[in-house]
Amino acid sequence: MKHSLSRIQHPGLQAKLMSADEAAALIRHGDNVGMSGFTGAGYPKVVPAALARHIERQNAAGGDPFRIGVWTGASTAPELDGALAKVGGIEMRLPYQSDPTCRQRINAGEMEYIDIHLSHVAQFVWFGFLGKLNVAVVEVAGILPDGRLVPTSSIGNNKTWLDQADRVILEVNHWHPTALEGMHDVYYGTALPPHRKPIPLLHPGDRIGEAYLHVDPSKVVAVVETNASDRVTPFSPPDAVSQRIAEHIIHFLGHEVKQGRLPPELLPLQSGVGNTANAVMAGLNNGPYTGLTAYTEVLQDGMLEMLKSGKMAMASATALSLSPDGIKEFMDNLDFYRQRIVLRPQEISNHPEVIRRLGIIAMNGMIEADIYGHVNSTHLMGTRIMNGIGGSGDFARNAYLSIFMTGSVAKGGKISCIVPMASHVDHTEHDVQVIVTEQGLADLRGLAPRQRARLIIERCAHPDYRDALTDYLERAEAVARSGFGGLHTPHVLPEALAWHERYERAGDMRAG
Amino acid sequence: MKHSLSRIQHPGLQAKLMSADEAAALIRHGDNVGMSGFTGAGYPKVVPAALARHIERQNAAGGDPFRIGVWTGASTAPELDGALAKVGGIEMRLPYQSDPTCRQRINAGEMEYIDIHLSHVAQFVWFGFLGKLNVAVVEVAGILPDGRLVPTSSIGNNKTWLDQADRVILEVNHWHPTALEGMHDVYYGTALPPHRKPIPLLHPGDRIGEAYLHVDPSKVVAVVETNASDRVTPFSPPDAVSQRIAEHIIHFLGHEVKQGRLPPELLPLQSGVGNTANAVMAGLNNGPYTGLTAYTEVLQDGMLEMLKSGKMAMASATALSLSPDGIKEFMDNLDFYRQRIVLRPQEISNHPEVIRRLGIIAMNGMIEADIYGHVNSTHLMGTRIMNGIGGSGDFARNAYLSIFMTGSVAKGGKISCIVPMASHVDHTEHDVQVIVTEQGLADLRGLAPRQRARLIIERCAHPDYRDALTDYLERAEAVARSGFGGLHTPHVLPEALAWHERYERAGDMRAG
Repeated sequence: MKHSLSRIQHPGLQAKLMSADEAAALIRHGDNVGMSGFTGAGYPKVVPAALARHIERQNAAGGDPFRIGVWTGASTAPELDGALAKVGGIEMRLPYQSDPTCRQRINAGEMEYIDIHLSHVAQFVWFGFLGKLNVAVVEVAGILPDGRLVPTSSIGNNKTWLDQADRVILEVNHWHPTALEGMHDVYYGTALPPHRKPIPLLHPGDRIGEAYLHVDPSKVVAVVETNASDRVTPFSPPDAVSQRIAEHIIHFLGHEVKQGRLPPELLPLQSGVGNTANAVMAGLNNGPYTGLTAYTEVLQDGMLEMLKSGKMAMASATALSLSPDGIKEFMDNLDFYRQRIVLRPQEISNHPEVIRRLGIIAMNGMIEADIYGHVNSTHLMGTRIMNGIGGSGDFARNAYLSIFMTGSVAKGGKISCIVPMASHVDHTEHDVQVIVTEQGLADLRGLAPRQRARLIIERCAHPDYRDALTDYLERAEAVARSGFGGLHTPHVLPEALAWHERYERAGDMRAG
Repeated sequence: MKHSLSRIQHPGLQAKLMSADEAAALIRHGDNVGMSGFTGAGYPKVVPAALARHIERQNAAGGDPFRIGVWTGASTAPELDGALAKVGGIEMRLPYQSDPTCRQRINAGEMEYIDIHLSHVAQFVWFGFLGKLNVAVVEVAGILPDGRLVPTSSIGNNKTWLDQADRVILEVNHWHPTALEGMHDVYYGTALPPHRKPIPLLHPGDRIGEAYLHVDPSKVVAVVETNASDRVTPFSPPDAVSQRIAEHIIHFLGHEVKQGRLPPELLPLQSGVGNTANAVMAGLNNGPYTGLTAYTEVLQDGMLEMLKSGKMAMASATALSLSPDGIKEFMDNLDFYRQRIVLRPQEISNHPEVIRRLGIIAMNGMIEADIYGHVNSTHLMGTRIMNGIGGSGDFARNAYLSIFMTGSVAKGGKISCIVPMASHVDHTEHDVQVIVTEQGLADLRGLAPRQRARLIIERCAHPDYRDALTDYLERAEAVARSGFGGLHTPHVLPEALAWHERYERAGDMRAG
């Protein structure tokens, strides 16, 4: 490709240029492969697909099955997770996925999946807890003469993959502007216990590392050139439910400022991915706040607009996840955004130490909450994985304020997202402070379990389910009073998961 | 009392000397009262009992009910929790209790209880999330001429109570040796976000603060003298179950050292309270390790012996919890132990930042685990509170290694501590790395849910329950294969809590 000389300035690495197929052939059955990629940003675009073709041919030829471990930052895209899962090429996937084919394979028992707090992944690899990382496949925007790498639209676990893998394949993607250079902050001060030092980050915009990733050039076995877009999803305007949730949250934050429990410029915002998150950002962008900051995993259009309007001064993330319009805005004004966005490794964006210190306002989506405030972020009806816990636990546990949000019902009202007992618990009653649906907001701080239950039912449950939830709670209290349980967290054990069972069997949680 | 002049050197505070009854009369109905005390150490000995008598008289006289909020470090003793709960004097209790009368009241619905991560408590009070703290009742060993306070056998949340309360009652306990002075390290560098700085603690023995607690003398409304022992529990030699659990853990740690995943001196140890913890410490004391350290909540006899033998170089905790023999040993050799023990506020002993940095080996007891590795630390049969989560979440989530342990059965075999689904989740699958019973140890690192299930059943379940657990798992897989669920975390929803229900109704989890 015409750009090679400018993008790949290290002569030794230029010499390793090859096709995606040639590079993919360097990956072997049984390898654990660390791929770049976080929320559909910065993943390798062509080597995984070439590998999938290779696996398909090999399996069609009737040889031994060819399967690998796929480790990433977080979710990737159909060309990576989808392609490899489709050919049955993934033995073990970690730490997060959101791909339909992956999900189907995992829930069919055809693929193993380990769902890990995103802040835990890098250190578990350093500790040797997840086995040997054999290969890294990492997308970069360029290679400097001394071999340092310019990251692209996400950093995720790339530093760790490049450090830990025996063999490294680099994808140099010409689609990314070279002007990304300087936006990243890669902290190389981590260490193994007992040699760890404080992470010297005091404000969301602090730069504590370097703008480049390091790699030992002698480990690089292939360099592949690409020119392909990140996975981009058009931005859909928030629906009425997201809009109402956003209004409740914005009203609540205003109340907290009035009570003196939040400073006028709030505290650094963390926000999960999706429409509701964008709606909250839009609401804040129209609100009275200035000097806002973000310390989050993923920067979406909503935050980009706040940076543009000047309401937000600085945003830290590990990945960008923008719509086509957002990408155009970002690329057209890269000099502006480079001064206001810092992309970091996820071991830093999600670090408990930093999150606790900064005092984050954490806003994460969920699948369901139960009346006592336990949150399920990962499983449908207790058994089917949806995506994964991602960074929600890193943020919720260590946040100043931990907010979870969802519509009060799903599937046209057939599923209540407020249930008697969560069918899977990812965030316990000890980590959930605020629950919001379009119906309202329940502030659970300082409340005991049964107080929480009454508030959640009253404020958050959909009217179609409110009476049934109250009935459950009252009968649970009666069971306890009759001697078969306690009144701290009363339950009717044989019915605790009956709503989920009913949905599995009848397609509707409502009694028929 | 004869010691007043030497123990209470501040003239203004000497002038506030009064009886426990007079001091208790300064506490009003509706007050939130922050009491010192952590694991039966350092709690006020006479004011709570005087308050209980006052409440009893008032309630007997038929006046309005007199109830207060009781906030502590962690558990206290019959003279505090027991006495106040007995007279129905507690409206709301937080963040932890282990008192039989309290437990009975909470489970009878007569008293509210909020079960909070111990590292969260102080900051929630600073943030204003739990309401106003009206009174502090704090035990001290002495008062310096300038009003600084010498702490006793625990620090817990005392710094926060003294800072935040409007009125302060001090109990000066002559039972504590004055030679405790200098053992404590009270860090006054905390701040509210966005003004927080790194906690400058790099090694378990580091001293980052002062040896004294501060209080504004003008807030002190009463000083009461006492001479009373902490709650002391005789040390019972480990039973066979604890012994076997300890052996499995020690074998595992040895294996990790051999694999290069732990340094030869291990990493700082955290250990819950109780016989099994003491058995693990005894095992380590007889093992090949030297230069061990501890960074934990509570220092028990087991660690004292390791300090004495020289196997352990330094221990950090927020409280001592010693047997009568342990107390004698400690008091007889205070100069030795003062150089090897640091007592800190629980906001530091349990701080996620510090735990993550130091790379703790966390060993905590539990009530039950399910086959997928979710841990219940707090509830009996899903509804009755036992004690509380305490610091187990602070340590488990941020540890280098997170180990949970229990006997495989309870109540003479009528309860299996390995169950199909945990009846309450305090530690999720994302936070549990190792499960140990006397049957064996399951190393869950790098395993997907169904792989974990087979290992936990094989290694940890009691033989009496093993077949039933395997049967449950296989039928859950069959349900998923028949289209009513997923194979990621398969469950037979109507049976997931049936073992608990059976125990409630029939007194035995085994099918009859």
